[in-house]
Amino acid sequence: MTSEIIVIADEVLLGQTLDTNSHFIAQQMVGIGQPVNTVTVIGDDKDVMLTAFREAYHRSDVVLITGGLGPTHDDKTKEVIARFFDLPIIFRNDILEAVRERFKERQLPLNDSTREQAQFPEGATPIPNRYGSAPGIWIEREGRFYGAMPGIPAEMKSMMTDFVIPRLRKRCEGRDTTRFRSLHTFGIMESTLFEMLDNREEIEQNAKLAFLPSYKGVILRLTAHGKSLEAANELLRRAERLVRDKVGSYIIGDGENFSIEEVVGRLLRERGWKLVTAESCTGGLLSKRLTDIPGSSDWFERGWVTYSNESKHEELGVPAELIEKHGAVSPEVAEAMAEGALRRSKGNVALSLTGVAGPGGGTEEKPVGLVYIGYATASTVMHKRHIFPDKRDVNRERSATAALMLLLDQFQPHIRERAPQLI
Amino acid sequence: MTSEIIVIADEVLLGQTLDTNSHFIAQQMVGIGQPVNTVTVIGDDKDVMLTAFREAYHRSDVVLITGGLGPTHDDKTKEVIARFFDLPIIFRNDILEAVRERFKERQLPLNDSTREQAQFPEGATPIPNRYGSAPGIWIEREGRFYGAMPGIPAEMKSMMTDFVIPRLRKRCEGRDTTRFRSLHTFGIMESTLFEMLDNREEIEQNAKLAFLPSYKGVILRLTAHGKSLEAANELLRRAERLVRDKVGSYIIGDGENFSIEEVVGRLLRERGWKLVTAESCTGGLLSKRLTDIPGSSDWFERGWVTYSNESKHEELGVPAELIEKHGAVSPEVAEAMAEGALRRSKGNVALSLTGVAGPGGGTEEKPVGLVYIGYATASTVMHKRHIFPDKRDVNRERSATAALMLLLDQFQPHIRERAPQLI
Repeated sequence: MTSEIIVIADEVLLGQTLDTNSHFIAQQMVGIGQPVNTVTVIGDDKDVMLTAFREAYHRSDVVLITGGLGPTHDDKTKEVIARFFDLPIIFRNDILEAVRERFKERQLPLNDSTREQAQFPEGATPIPNRYGSAPGIWIEREGRFYGAMPGIPAEMKSMMTDFVIPRLRKRCEGRDTTRFRSLHTFGIMESTLFEMLDNREEIEQNAKLAFLPSYKGVILRLTAHGKSLEAANELLRRAERLVRDKVGSYIIGDGENFSIEEVVGRLLRERGWKLVTAESCTGGLLSKRLTDIPGSSDWFERGWVTYSNESKHEELGVPAELIEKHGAVSPEVAEAMAEGALRRSKGNVALSLTGVAGPGGGTEEKPVGLVYIGYATASTVMHKRHIFPDKRDVNRERSATAALMLLLDQFQPHIRERAPQLI
Repeated sequence: MTSEIIVIADEVLLGQTLDTNSHFIAQQMVGIGQPVNTVTVIGDDKDVMLTAFREAYHRSDVVLITGGLGPTHDDKTKEVIARFFDLPIIFRNDILEAVRERFKERQLPLNDSTREQAQFPEGATPIPNRYGSAPGIWIEREGRFYGAMPGIPAEMKSMMTDFVIPRLRKRCEGRDTTRFRSLHTFGIMESTLFEMLDNREEIEQNAKLAFLPSYKGVILRLTAHGKSLEAANELLRRAERLVRDKVGSYIIGDGENFSIEEVVGRLLRERGWKLVTAESCTGGLLSKRLTDIPGSSDWFERGWVTYSNESKHEELGVPAELIEKHGAVSPEVAEAMAEGALRRSKGNVALSLTGVAGPGGGTEEKPVGLVYIGYATASTVMHKRHIFPDKRDVNRERSATAALMLLLDQFQPHIRERAPQLI
């Protein structure tokens, strides 16, 4: 079964909105073993849409469209789909009633442009919209599946999970299945990994091997095709064993939900330790990322966002003289922040960050991107210095990641020892 | 000039990686008045790549490719481009020297797979890589421009800004230009806005009007085409005036860098006030988002991430009995957190959040998604209750947004008064 996604969104082409919809749809399709082959983003021009619909229809068994369904004049998907399938537009009282009901619940006035939603292509199936007024459109024809959903993420997502995926899952029973699996490495370069994996041919007899480098580490991805879920999973298992034979000691986690935050949480949980944070330049990003993990209250105790110098002194007990002498962005203050956080809480380990996030505030001595990370336990105090070359938001993300890596390093020193050429 | 983007990334099709590269490239192209017409994401299959390159070449004057350039066997872009343009691969000593230099600086060993980077299509121009070893590939032919860049964001971005954009800017001087402008509304439904803008025809004689709804408010986007930058900007100005005539009082900001955080920052700055935050369920997300804004130290003073009950008591002085009696997720605790944050800092206004972020921890009385937002100034203490229906990460984002909106509401009550049907 071949499938693809069409995103209708001028705002994506204009760089105004990041397209996360196709990402979600792609994940859902992977979930039923049918990854998409193509994503196409186009503008809301009727002719362009018609051409894209036609090409996709010839290329793929499943075409999932998002965007261009709504109450305003720039929403053209319904009209173009009706034209493409040659379906007349009719008035559907059941749709109007559903919209009326939803608006009543939310105590909103029903206006004319909302009433327009009840105009619907004859013979197509409306996909109920849990969060908005525009129904999706579902068409099955010649063994092919066409689904159009609004571009608002919450509306599209509920249509995917409640309607589209259950239907497609049934249709692809007994068909070939694609599965993949990710192995997350830490502390080793992509090209070194590549050379260490000199059994690639054997691996690839089972599953396709791909390398995904990022500043958090290189991910090894295995993708297998099988006649069934079990067959594909067995191929993945075999390939994974071959990979682990060669580079197992660099693998710190696996799966799609892997994150450094999870590994840190697991290590803290194993020790029965609690982490506390003291952040300046990252302004809460580190604690935000840690508390992204469900259950993080078991190992994350509290955090401070000591943005002002006074707050560093008042909340964490960093001596005012220390800040005056070395500056807020200094190894001394980073360490004092971590020590203070430890002292003023019941945490067992503290991470701190102080840096110049940019774009302003840099000097020759302390440039934008400079960050000091502090680490403190009852027995150890240390810091690490980084200079990140990116923009404010990326520098802040990298800083938070570097703090987590520093903890990882301290908790799992054997990995670093084997990989001196750390990224 | 027509242009498009091709993303070569199995990881995007597999829903493993969110494609942010095309977003960046699209923004850069908008910056020179030449928005892209299409983004296509495909896998790293050579035949698929060849077909996509051919279609794009016929369709567009500028084709920007990202992904598939690197040291491993799954990097196929170079080979396919060479085949498409019928260019032999030659050894380029200058590329090897550049890579050797970069590895020496970073004290990394130069291995064979890295040396492979010096194999390059004859007649093509290498795009220098500031952050990695694989050069990009630039080809000009028959008035068309072909650029291939690695998929690693930092590498692609520097190639775009340092090499591709300067070249393209020169080539599109004197050509038609497209500009757009966003007007951000707050407190009004999309369909109501649509109906109030009954001068759409007049607006669209100048610029295309689009509606972008989100849970942060509806964005009105105007897009104009002109013979020059000035002509396009003049059309935008005219259209904007017509929009503001009708719905001006709902517009709280404009431009692409607009954010609620910026508006909050501006309002605080105008009053000379400092904001402090006390977060439980959002774990620092609110302070993170506030400190995303450069210069936020002028109006953001400090924040607490009081994740544990003890920390709510110890850091903010929330009485232990209050937590015991009403629970940590309660209007009483939300207000006490805000009051405590105000009392224990030099802030003029405090925002607090306490809620059940999920997925676990929900009860019938206090379901997942329930959040209380506290607001305190010297003269006012209040709270607001929300129940968000999404997943943990989205609920947390919406909670932080709701906190900012509460402040906005308090600072600009006239908007809310005119829009009782608030989203």
